[in-house]
Amino acid sequence: MAKLVECIPNFSEGRDQAVIDALVNEAKSVPGVTLLDHSSDASHNRSVFTLVGDPEGIAEAAFRLCKLASEKIDMTKHTGEHPRMGATDVIPFVPVKDMTEEECVEISKKVAERIYNELKIPSFLYEASAQKPGRTNLAAVRKGQFEGMPEKLQQEEWAPDFGERKIHPTAGITAIGARMPLVAFNINLNTSDINIANAIAKTIRASSGGFKYCKAIGVMLEDRNIAQVSMNMVNYEGTPLYRVFEVVRAEAKRWGVTITGSEVIGLTPAKALVDCAEYYLQIENFDYGKQILENHLLG
Amino acid sequence: MAKLVECIPNFSEGRDQAVIDALVNEAKSVPGVTLLDHSSDASHNRSVFTLVGDPEGIAEAAFRLCKLASEKIDMTKHTGEHPRMGATDVIPFVPVKDMTEEECVEISKKVAERIYNELKIPSFLYEASAQKPGRTNLAAVRKGQFEGMPEKLQQEEWAPDFGERKIHPTAGITAIGARMPLVAFNINLNTSDINIANAIAKTIRASSGGFKYCKAIGVMLEDRNIAQVSMNMVNYEGTPLYRVFEVVRAEAKRWGVTITGSEVIGLTPAKALVDCAEYYLQIENFDYGKQILENHLLG
Repeated sequence: MAKLVECIPNFSEGRDQAVIDALVNEAKSVPGVTLLDHSSDASHNRSVFTLVGDPEGIAEAAFRLCKLASEKIDMTKHTGEHPRMGATDVIPFVPVKDMTEEECVEISKKVAERIYNELKIPSFLYEASAQKPGRTNLAAVRKGQFEGMPEKLQQEEWAPDFGERKIHPTAGITAIGARMPLVAFNINLNTSDINIANAIAKTIRASSGGFKYCKAIGVMLEDRNIAQVSMNMVNYEGTPLYRVFEVVRAEAKRWGVTITGSEVIGLTPAKALVDCAEYYLQIENFDYGKQILENHLLG
Repeated sequence: MAKLVECIPNFSEGRDQAVIDALVNEAKSVPGVTLLDHSSDASHNRSVFTLVGDPEGIAEAAFRLCKLASEKIDMTKHTGEHPRMGATDVIPFVPVKDMTEEECVEISKKVAERIYNELKIPSFLYEASAQKPGRTNLAAVRKGQFEGMPEKLQQEEWAPDFGERKIHPTAGITAIGARMPLVAFNINLNTSDINIANAIAKTIRASSGGFKYCKAIGVMLEDRNIAQVSMNMVNYEGTPLYRVFEVVRAEAKRWGVTITGSEVIGLTPAKALVDCAEYYLQIENFDYGKQILENHLLG
């Protein structure tokens, strides 16, 4: 294997096990593609799949899953806590090996075109695939959700990138795009005051003047009675984990608070953590591609 | 691919390019085996190869290279700065994936037996393969070097593990064994006093009461005029890199010295560095096997 792409489609079904099983079976049926992980949340009524494979296989899998979801999921009957606008709500493509973000942009466009041509489901291109400035951010794209989309699509600036100005009656509309791997990284504080976590989150997130590739909010871990800075690191090369960690540590000082621990949720590329070891161990001239043994085994 | 073993044979030839090329070609000719790296040093008159492959392929490659080295290298004419006792001086086998150290011990014994049966080159089993207590340490096994071996083999406790009490006339004797991956890790100090590097090395190395899986000496980097603590981390799980780094930092304080940087020489398993990120970022409950994306791609 040479080029590898990850695809993390989100489906608007997290309760009906028969539908989830059908999607799992479909994901496993595509040659050249491996289903790494899938998880479903009943209160969100949503499932997240993680697939990896060669560019052709992953494009085929994304299409087939979107097709099956459109047959099995009726958005007019969907309820759940998580914002959503389509049966297949979002399809991100992520470069994993010997791939650039640009190549993933190409894949996203091809898949979006095919989904409209064959399934009549329109789509917005988002993140690195965005063709218009307001479409980089998924939250902005999805605003209004399934129920508000018919009206939104009539607005001058909200024509879909593929398809006409109307949603698929039951499958809605899908966001499709390329992005760097996301690392879900949370830092726990020795305080039960969520205001402190919120204040710290504000200092590090891009939207409040912090790091360009960091999204952050404060949350309470009720079971442990501690506040947490919960982050999505959307480009660990542009904004490394250790840098936000050290800034969180420094900002926490102002409140007399310390870091008690952190969490990495789900998968992370090894490099996101090896980069941190490089920083803390002050390693000079480290060549990730050449010096990490495993990089010679993935050929 | 499932099981993967690394083999890092050291040959007593670092000057004659024709011999080095022949060994390279032989290494590349074995099915199921990849030559990851090879480097030769003229003053040491020694070459180090790094191969990886399935257990059967790697055993075959080790034998073939040892055979070729015995045909091309005459130890009676060998000079060089590095201690050595055989044309193929040492053959370590290292578990890389889905392998235990014990399985590598089995490989080392099979290869050692075949090398004696077919080539009449005797061997010592060392490191995790050692059958006698004094043979774990390569330096102890190799003491006396090629020239002193005929006499050493006559000593009660120094019968080879395979072969009779006499060396091969031109290929000498070989140390063969299994060990965990070794990480060559050096820490640079902002002092030109090698006595300080030596004093610090003494606090961290096993032989002076330090960490069990750390070997360390002080060296001068003449070109930069700084002293360095140069280490071989022989089991990064038993003695993690961050722990020696922090102890070196603490010991350096006594001399008013700080760490200016570090170096990882050659290859390292990703885990040796990810473990350090886990420590410094205080990551709770990290599951290396499951949470590192690449671990799902190595088949």
